[in-house]
Amino acid sequence: RSRGKAHKYRYVVLKWTFCLLIGVLVAAVGFFNNLAVENITGFKFLSLSKLMEAERYWTAFGVFAGSNLLLLLFASAITSFISPAAGGSGIPEVKAYLNGVDAPNIFTLKTLFVKILGNITAVSSSLHVGKAGPMVHIGACIASIFGQGGSQKYHLTCDWLRYFKNDRDRRDLVTIGASAGIAAGFRAPVGGVLLAVESLSSWWRSALLWRSFFATAVVAVVLRVLIGVCDSGQCGLFGKGGLIMYDVTNDTTTYQLADLPIVILLGIIGGVLGSLYNFLMLKVLRIYGYINEKSHAHKLLLTSAVSILISCFLYWLPWIASCRPCPSTSNGDCLSTNRFRQFQCPKNYYNDLASLFLNTHDNAIRNLYSTGTNDFYHPLSLLLFFVSSYIFGILSYGVVAPFGLFVPIILTGATYGRFVAILLGSYTELDHGLVAILGSASFLGGTMRMTVSVCVIIIELTNNLLLLPLVMLVLLVSKTVADSFNGNIYDMILQLKGLPYLEGHAEPYMRQLTVSDVLSGPLHSFNGVEKVGNIVHTLRSTRHHAFPVIDEPPFSPSPVLYGLILRSHLLVVLKKKAFVPTNSLSGHEKASKIFVASDFDKRGSGKHDTIDDVNITPEEMEMFVDLHPFTNTSPYTVVETMSLAKALTLFREVGLRHMLVVPKSSDRAPVVGILTRHDFLPEHILGLHPFLVRSHWK
Amino acid sequence: RSRGKAHKYRYVVLKWTFCLLIGVLVAAVGFFNNLAVENITGFKFLSLSKLMEAERYWTAFGVFAGSNLLLLLFASAITSFISPAAGGSGIPEVKAYLNGVDAPNIFTLKTLFVKILGNITAVSSSLHVGKAGPMVHIGACIASIFGQGGSQKYHLTCDWLRYFKNDRDRRDLVTIGASAGIAAGFRAPVGGVLLAVESLSSWWRSALLWRSFFATAVVAVVLRVLIGVCDSGQCGLFGKGGLIMYDVTNDTTTYQLADLPIVILLGIIGGVLGSLYNFLMLKVLRIYGYINEKSHAHKLLLTSAVSILISCFLYWLPWIASCRPCPSTSNGDCLSTNRFRQFQCPKNYYNDLASLFLNTHDNAIRNLYSTGTNDFYHPLSLLLFFVSSYIFGILSYGVVAPFGLFVPIILTGATYGRFVAILLGSYTELDHGLVAILGSASFLGGTMRMTVSVCVIIIELTNNLLLLPLVMLVLLVSKTVADSFNGNIYDMILQLKGLPYLEGHAEPYMRQLTVSDVLSGPLHSFNGVEKVGNIVHTLRSTRHHAFPVIDEPPFSPSPVLYGLILRSHLLVVLKKKAFVPTNSLSGHEKASKIFVASDFDKRGSGKHDTIDDVNITPEEMEMFVDLHPFTNTSPYTVVETMSLAKALTLFREVGLRHMLVVPKSSDRAPVVGILTRHDFLPEHILGLHPFLVRSHWK
Repeated sequence: RSRGKAHKYRYVVLKWTFCLLIGVLVAAVGFFNNLAVENITGFKFLSLSKLMEAERYWTAFGVFAGSNLLLLLFASAITSFISPAAGGSGIPEVKAYLNGVDAPNIFTLKTLFVKILGNITAVSSSLHVGKAGPMVHIGACIASIFGQGGSQKYHLTCDWLRYFKNDRDRRDLVTIGASAGIAAGFRAPVGGVLLAVESLSSWWRSALLWRSFFATAVVAVVLRVLIGVCDSGQCGLFGKGGLIMYDVTNDTTTYQLADLPIVILLGIIGGVLGSLYNFLMLKVLRIYGYINEKSHAHKLLLTSAVSILISCFLYWLPWIASCRPCPSTSNGDCLSTNRFRQFQCPKNYYNDLASLFLNTHDNAIRNLYSTGTNDFYHPLSLLLFFVSSYIFGILSYGVVAPFGLFVPIILTGATYGRFVAILLGSYTELDHGLVAILGSASFLGGTMRMTVSVCVIIIELTNNLLLLPLVMLVLLVSKTVADSFNGNIYDMILQLKGLPYLEGHAEPYMRQLTVSDVLSGPLHSFNGVEKVGNIVHTLRSTRHHAFPVIDEPPFSPSPVLYGLILRSHLLVVLKKKAFVPTNSLSGHEKASKIFVASDFDKRGSGKHDTIDDVNITPEEMEMFVDLHPFTNTSPYTVVETMSLAKALTLFREVGLRHMLVVPKSSDRAPVVGILTRHDFLPEHILGLHPFLVRSHWK
Repeated sequence: RSRGKAHKYRYVVLKWTFCLLIGVLVAAVGFFNNLAVENITGFKFLSLSKLMEAERYWTAFGVFAGSNLLLLLFASAITSFISPAAGGSGIPEVKAYLNGVDAPNIFTLKTLFVKILGNITAVSSSLHVGKAGPMVHIGACIASIFGQGGSQKYHLTCDWLRYFKNDRDRRDLVTIGASAGIAAGFRAPVGGVLLAVESLSSWWRSALLWRSFFATAVVAVVLRVLIGVCDSGQCGLFGKGGLIMYDVTNDTTTYQLADLPIVILLGIIGGVLGSLYNFLMLKVLRIYGYINEKSHAHKLLLTSAVSILISCFLYWLPWIASCRPCPSTSNGDCLSTNRFRQFQCPKNYYNDLASLFLNTHDNAIRNLYSTGTNDFYHPLSLLLFFVSSYIFGILSYGVVAPFGLFVPIILTGATYGRFVAILLGSYTELDHGLVAILGSASFLGGTMRMTVSVCVIIIELTNNLLLLPLVMLVLLVSKTVADSFNGNIYDMILQLKGLPYLEGHAEPYMRQLTVSDVLSGPLHSFNGVEKVGNIVHTLRSTRHHAFPVIDEPPFSPSPVLYGLILRSHLLVVLKKKAFVPTNSLSGHEKASKIFVASDFDKRGSGKHDTIDDVNITPEEMEMFVDLHPFTNTSPYTVVETMSLAKALTLFREVGLRHMLVVPKSSDRAPVVGILTRHDFLPEHILGLHPFLVRSHWK
């Protein structure tokens, strides 16, 4: 790749400009999401309480359930009909992309819009879902569209911006976008970067740390400015949430060594509940998946059923709770601060269950985290809310619409944290709000199995650095406990979606195998100068993405490996018809006349050319093409006797898509096979060598 | 590597136990260091102020300068005579170790003790040096000693513990130890982990993140307990420092968009001052290095000169400052809180310069960071203190003794931060204490060029999360500015020490070269069954660490590459004299009778066997040895035409020490060369291809 100083300079400037723009845009989208959700839900709850004050309870229920249903159906419909790739949280897809798996259409402009709109409406529909997870996908989408220089489909491209043409640059941008997304979702700049390091990216470089850090710093600054604008009250029902979402700084946080057992207890509970949550979630996702794949009507029917079911519970369960008098400290305005709900109660009384159920998730979490409120909630209300939000969370996620898992998990965790604190009673002097924070942490650790990033996010969410050791411990305990039952939820979803994610470590049995043990299927290779017909036939009859190129006599004294050629490059060559009539070298000079370097750029995430788009006449089929100029002459190779574990290390650490296997002795063909990601997947290997399943190496 | 379930279980338990123990020990050492330093310096300053109250000014100076000299001479002497590897901060050595460079004796028990003792005395000697950096080395040392299962030299080994016998496990432990060290040094658990990710380690895995996080969580908990013990006043003159070193939470931190230019200005100043600091430091280190390598006497003479010089300035400079009345808010006890120094002033007056000069660094930083103290310091005092601490910092570091760079840099940065704040006057409403924090951040960014980790450390040091966006921005600006002048200080020291650190990225000119372009020197290889004499001769005449093993007729039909054998394994084989009289295969069965797997464990960091320790009789020289059982049969190989950049990616990402180069065509010897770390160093490549120096690829 030859580029002079000017190119290099432009490249660096563009790289940083993109980080800046990604930061600004992601922050704006994150803020807009919040604004929209809080206004829609705020308006909904306002109408609800007006109708309840007028004692028109059934009308209230009708309005509540009806608006929820409409909102969710809208989200579900645009996802199903316009962009199915926008469904779910998108974190598994981003994680797979950063591992080298390009799922179709995940980073298009259409997906981005559906994701934003769908997420706003779905979250506003009082479904038990979050708005932080999708921010990862939104951030990654924005970044990827920048990386492609715009959207080709809608002709929104700018050549000046099309500068990031290889996998690595794109992957870097997507990582940065994902960090910015988390940073915007939780207003947690450091946490965002760490989450990308810990759970999203498969390769990490120090330089990337710095750039994603820049992007998240921009996010923090932009968010601060936007929130500052809203502080003057021009944002409708947007709450008072500052840069710290659930600020608990001003309260004293003291803890003793004697509180450590409680922390460990919470960790164990979180681990057990978390792994059970993952287990149940997987079951429900399987059932939903079975329904959803039938037809669009089935999807919408399922959506409606879930929405109506949850609306019923949300509205009718709080009637069980008794009315509680407003605390004396709040001077009677306990209802006006949006924290407590009057519901069916008389003036100056609040319904604790309704305050949790019929509120935005953010407000409910704020309620549970607030300190000095030990006796604000009845234990049974908390238990009821915990059980229902645990179940609602599991039931909600499989619905086809864009939303995330973080917020429901934080909320559910906070609830059992508080419940445990009440049960422990006078044993501990820990504030119940703090125990709620630890509960959230433990449940996050039990389901998502992240440690450092979740810890930092919790600290950034609550602005309470002194909690750090406790949060760390609770996360470690809950992760350890949960890991002994099953895997983390995103990996489960990854597997369920069938994305071929490649783990970084080798399984023990891979040490017993050599690469030749996993080679399968016939090898398709081309000669240095190959007949067009052969190429077309091979491309039509196989789905391989790369082929070895071998020089045979008369072009070399004996068969020798020349390199590796990509299917996408072959298609470009065929399309431009760079053919010669005879079997002879035409060479690099001719190629440089017909082709420019950008012909071979990595394509964006939209639709790609296939061999069926190339029209070759029968005469051309008999012609030849010199593949030498288009071949990568430095492919990574391994000897056939190389240990499979070592080959995997090479494949994964260097981030390859193809690896050539060469023979040990020199009297055979110069290539014996080609390894791809699929050849390293445990399913493939154990399928070829079933005895390994029961061996003690497994 | 065959191990059953029990072994695996023991391995996992041991891994986590080590993390726990490393955390506990590192925290204990970190706490002990602080305790010792604060007591020694506290006692020193107490005597000083008593003598000054008695107006015995010259005696006071004598006591001050004398105790400083003695303390520093002690530190310098033990370092020079007992363990030179303990000198300096140790961060470059740890960084190099994690890159694959084993510097001699850096992780021995002797080094550990010298490092701890020397650091305490050196810091107590009022030299302008820190105690946080050496904690990295101390942590790494402790971890490495665990990894070796104790110290062999002092027979403190335990076989049960000797379980981490390969490079990767050791490297993991050292990374964890280093994280714990930073965490203990700054009481910053998240910052510790991040520093290890960002600047120390060359390879990083998610699993490591989790384990180092556990270790730093343990550090935080143990520190909290120990500090709790001291709160009851049983620790002598140990200050009131809690888990947060310079807590500034309780003060309001507000900033506007209009303050951003100030942040950027500070960043630029920090970048310029930082790169100049690095530049001057390098010059001074070169001069000191020239003096130090002459003799031990020279070292001690230099030490004494620096100590006396700095003592003079520390004591006599404050006489310039005028006396300032104690602030009314402090109720007259401004002198008793250890923050302000009365020095030569009358009662209820303080000398601002002495309060900075004649104080522990921690107290000085606390003074500068404290908010609501905008008019406590005279601008000229700050300027004077800034200039002298800038120069003292540069003059101090080259002295032969164990100490770090962090604290002086934080202190110097805080001073110019405050000075800038005073100069800006009414332009900004930012509190001067906050500007001091930003100043520290900018200077850290300008010298050490770390971003995320320093940001988190600053936040953890000051417990002020709202500062985050500002700290991020100031760091980014200062790093960018400084990077345009020169490299970071640790890399400079690395180069100065001649440690062959391998960068992760390939230089542009490497894309133009193939691996065969950098091969140099004759290749030494062995036959599968080799004559003992040949092995001994080759080991004596070369310093290579690994040799290809080639099977030739009659053991194979044509010469074929069998694998790679390490020098250290050859030495084991020679020592045990596993010889056969004739040129024949003796095979794996015989080898398994003579050797056990642990014979080939990776050795610890102490003294190793050399070929001169092996005695071979002339008769034995004529015998043969079958190398097959001792050969690694899966070495990583590259074809000679592979691009050098790609080969470097493989070498670096997989973490290799040797890589075999195989020929392209099959009619030559099966190996054409062996690549090691040195072959990828720019010095080596540019030496072989001098024209590249001036090419535009450079």
